Amino acid sequence: MKIDYEELMSTFAASLRPNAIRSLMPLLVRPDIISFGGGAPSSETLPIEELAEMASRVIRDRGRSVLQYGPTRGQPALVQEVALYLRSRGMKDATPSEIILTTGSQQGLDLVSRIVLDPGDVALVELPSYVGGTIALHNSGARLVGVQQDQDGMVISDLRERIDEVRAEGRRPKCIYTIPNFQNPSGITLAAERRQELVRVAEEQDLLIIEDDPYAELYFDDEASRLAPLASLCPSHVIYLGTFSKVLAPGLRTAWLRAPKEIAAKIETAKEGADLSSSQLDQALVYEALRTGLVESRLPMIREFYRTRCMAMTEALENHAASGTTWTRPRGGFFVLMETDRQIEATKLLPAAIEAGVAYVPGQPFFVDSSGANTFRLAFSKESPENIHTGIKALCDVIKRIG
Amino acid sequence: MKIDYEELMSTFAASLRPNAIRSLMPLLVRPDIISFGGGAPSSETLPIEELAEMASRVIRDRGRSVLQYGPTRGQPALVQEVALYLRSRGMKDATPSEIILTTGSQQGLDLVSRIVLDPGDVALVELPSYVGGTIALHNSGARLVGVQQDQDGMVISDLRERIDEVRAEGRRPKCIYTIPNFQNPSGITLAAERRQELVRVAEEQDLLIIEDDPYAELYFDDEASRLAPLASLCPSHVIYLGTFSKVLAPGLRTAWLRAPKEIAAKIETAKEGADLSSSQLDQALVYEALRTGLVESRLPMIREFYRTRCMAMTEALENHAASGTTWTRPRGGFFVLMETDRQIEATKLLPAAIEAGVAYVPGQPFFVDSSGANTFRLAFSKESPENIHTGIKALCDVIKRIG
Repeated sequence: MKIDYEELMSTFAASLRPNAIRSLMPLLVRPDIISFGGGAPSSETLPIEELAEMASRVIRDRGRSVLQYGPTRGQPALVQEVALYLRSRGMKDATPSEIILTTGSQQGLDLVSRIVLDPGDVALVELPSYVGGTIALHNSGARLVGVQQDQDGMVISDLRERIDEVRAEGRRPKCIYTIPNFQNPSGITLAAERRQELVRVAEEQDLLIIEDDPYAELYFDDEASRLAPLASLCPSHVIYLGTFSKVLAPGLRTAWLRAPKEIAAKIETAKEGADLSSSQLDQALVYEALRTGLVESRLPMIREFYRTRCMAMTEALENHAASGTTWTRPRGGFFVLMETDRQIEATKLLPAAIEAGVAYVPGQPFFVDSSGANTFRLAFSKESPENIHTGIKALCDVIKRIG
Repeated sequence: MKIDYEELMSTFAASLRPNAIRSLMPLLVRPDIISFGGGAPSSETLPIEELAEMASRVIRDRGRSVLQYGPTRGQPALVQEVALYLRSRGMKDATPSEIILTTGSQQGLDLVSRIVLDPGDVALVELPSYVGGTIALHNSGARLVGVQQDQDGMVISDLRERIDEVRAEGRRPKCIYTIPNFQNPSGITLAAERRQELVRVAEEQDLLIIEDDPYAELYFDDEASRLAPLASLCPSHVIYLGTFSKVLAPGLRTAWLRAPKEIAAKIETAKEGADLSSSQLDQALVYEALRTGLVESRLPMIREFYRTRCMAMTEALENHAASGTTWTRPRGGFFVLMETDRQIEATKLLPAAIEAGVAYVPGQPFFVDSSGANTFRLAFSKESPENIHTGIKALCDVIKRIG
């Protein structure tokens, strides 16, 4: 289907990048601005020297394969590593035939959407949700219906109501898109009992869950580390997406998805038409980083890196936030979502915040029902704890002054 | 739109990979089989040592950017190099704003199809044409209409007739997909005067030409090197796709497209939803290989490598072909298309050919009208000249014996 860019712009991009924000974009990366804007891993967590050494080694040793075309599904050795990892996460029967490597999880979201959705089908998504996910669903012609979240994630009673409404309107609910761990943009985690309820809804209603789990390994406490992936509870109704972007390097564009075998086969065919295969060198490097234990050995450091920054942010908010302001308490990941009094609009406040030396992303574009004008996505992944304290104080001062 | 895999399989994949062939696939890469099957560059042309050294260097020097997320449109330095190259190919006004880097040209074909086509629109394609291109068009809901080729490429009078027919049926012709140089699978080159006529048709009929030019630099004679890209004749009606896969390394998955600025902007948005960006490391490596002159310096060797193999194949065919057999005389690229007497079916002959130690790809899947059962795609890119002589003799013997 032709992607309707005029509609897309009016639905998402206009709120995602209104001219007011677009003109400020260069400021978000200005060195004198403390930025809570980007959602990328900190460059301080990248194992540059190790990957430099590995890159020359894998090209010298296996150049004839890593510089050549490779299988659409991904390099078998890496697919096998992913299968082993999934088994360790409770997907006991995970096999290579269910796994497809993708050019980042964004490609996984796009391919899944293209396979699953007919124009007009309804996809249920969290309020708020990741814009890359909702755009992929939208590009396949889906109608997006938002489901409320509270501090324990998607509200299952609201999900049931939305499904009933959709069916009553004669439309077809097809899938539920969720980021259960340390969600982008909210930092919310889906509670254990909600996971059971959510897969029950999917089974009862015969809906497919798209479980997007890029931050899985970036947990800050043991309990969060033990939360079961939805795909481990009900593999037949869940497509699970994971990535090496947050635990190794996003520039290597290597992610994976696990789907029921028949769906995986269709996704493989779709990927063949979409890019033949992902980068062979990137896959070989990721495999080498797994094989040698580099990824595993660095995880404790990476978790501590982001945990420290998250604590700095929530502490700073406790110290400085204006009355009426609330914020989430992430148990992993990169993001806090802050909500202010109703009358404050995050988009309108941005120029003054940047003037005061601090940047963020307004939360509204993440809400498919266009609510959330008074929400702020605050990424703690980029700045030092000291900068986080300084930036949060500056932002709260602006809110108190102008809001 | 949901990609209809049942239909896709029946339209293409069934002919592309009938069970009879699928079971033989492992044989196509068996070391004791002389294979004219694959369409990949020879691994002998890969600059392994140079790329190994460059990879460690670019990661050490620029790890914080090449291992990080990067712009959807591609790394600016590489986009600029592509713009300079396009200007040298006659696209005098080529600017970075018209260029998008893609995860191989396959992604370019997919994104262009998603932007340009509404379901039911007609795409005109050569008979035969590259399957990856026709699948991408099909995945966006296009109806594919074949246009005859002769030894000078697309027959313009046939193109005009097909367009008239399509319009008479009340359908909308939207684009013309062409591989003007050393086409896959036929090896045919579009003659200079035909290029003028083709862009005239596109202008008159307001159709977009999708010019897929992966083999551009792999010419075997000076005259072929001077043929003008269609995009240089009529930039407003042509989307041009080029790649580093054939002149550097296909595993690096780095290609580009040039489109009128407004279309390029839409493709950038589509790419954001499709994979955020292509591999940053691959782009950095390709840029380094261009910047240091590695790509340029190796082109004469690469052209001679394939020219020698092409000559071996056409000589062997002259020596051994059965009467009634014809074949194309490529002026570049990787492929000869051989056509036998009507009663011979390339698919049915394959088991006997493999028994005799030689493999090829049956030509029929490349014909969107399902003609071409008696055609054989013979890639000369993989085997040595000696093996090519041996393999062609063996194949011709099988045809004489069984055909």
